Amino acid sequence: MHDVTLTTRRREEFIRLDDHLESLAAAYGWRDGLLLLHVPHTTAALTINENGDPDVPRDLLMRLAVLAQDSGYRHAEGNSDAHLKSSLLGCQLWVPLKDGRLRLGTWQSVWFCEFDGPRQRQIWVRHMEDFGVQRG
Amino acid sequence: MHDVTLTTRRREEFIRLDDHLESLAAAYGWRDGLLLLHVPHTTAALTINENGDPDVPRDLLMRLAVLAQDSGYRHAEGNSDAHLKSSLLGCQLWVPLKDGRLRLGTWQSVWFCEFDGPRQRQIWVRHMEDFGVQRG
Amino acid sequence: MHDVTLTTRRREEFIRLDDHLESLAAAYGWRDGLLLLHVPHTTAALTINENGDPDVPRDLLMRLAVLAQDSGYRHAEGNSDAHLKSSLLGCQLWVPLKDGRLRLGTWQSVWFCEFDGPRQRQIWVRHMEDFGVQRG
Repeated sequence: MHDVTLTTRRREEFIRLDDHLESLAAAYGWRDGLLLLHVPHTTAALTINENGDPDVPRDLLMRLAVLAQDSGYRHAEGNSDAHLKSSLLGCQLWVPLKDGRLRLGTWQSVWFCEFDGPRQRQIWVRHMEDFGVQRG
Repeated sequence: MHDVTLTTRRREEFIRLDDHLESLAAAYGWRDGLLLLHVPHTTAALTINENGDPDVPRDLLMRLAVLAQDSGYRHAEGNSDAHLKSSLLGCQLWVPLKDGRLRLGTWQSVWFCEFDGPRQRQIWVRHMEDFGVQRG
Repeated sequence: MHDVTLTTRRREEFIRLDDHLESLAAAYGWRDGLLLLHVPHTTAALTINENGDPDVPRDLLMRLAVLAQDSGYRHAEGNSDAHLKSSLLGCQLWVPLKDGRLRLGTWQSVWFCEFDGPRQRQIWVRHMEDFGVQRG
């Protein structure tokens, strides 16, 4: 298990992970297979979404804030909205590697989603060799 | 990596993938193990949900439209609602295979979720042999 | 494939699975690798979230009820809200094992999410040996 460490700078932001993950793959010599990503935090998440227009992450954060707005939260830390967003988007992803690069759709990137920063955060990365036998 | 190609016919619809996946398994001789499904698009998703009553996918699409309605989106393509739905449901699933058939719960099917069609879409399918040692 | 069976006691509740999973691991002698969890139901889900304050699951259930409230559902069983929550949170998780214990973040636990109980429910558990070669 290897880590990517991030320092987030706002309460809420999306940070693109593609370069971090490809640097880690280069450092360890991972060429193919899969990466299992796991965020060990309960007020953050991972998602795959568009990498072209910065208004997409901005729109996602804006609308998630509406979805998670306070309608009677009791949790004393006052960050139940962030816990909900973490469960809605999820804290795990699988990313295929090919020749040391992420193999995603043309417009897809992997995003770390901070919902209760700024903080220091981690993404656990586990590399798996391909374990299939692809006949045909 | 193998593909299922779909042509969607509406802006929003759910298309059941079970038969497509079992046909692919038959074509390649996959009997057991797991399928990793990945949608390489940022305005579509995958989900597992009920296969009995067509009103279930209809109700999900109807309510997702409420959740993702425009409250100030800026993304110029005008499809931020579809990007949000993609992140809420996710673009990946793992499906167990047994004797060439999907091994899901009685009422479960795998659904492709179109949120910005009609378009031609792909689902990437990676077959994994079982890699566990199940003692006991 | 092995099962955890749960009897839920309310229409909606979160049940912490960590102890159930570690007991299963002990019974089968699983020490390391990964567990793939799959809920074979369409009105329940799995999520990873905070294990400290019981107000967190309470707040999540409260706000999910708002998100999934009826704005014209047609499904005759009257539980479309539960189907939507199942798709929003998802029915699958991967959990790393280390020395027979779940390896999660400090505040993370695995939760079974009942949205249409009380019922008897199952969680399918598949153990995978580590299949990576971690160089470097």
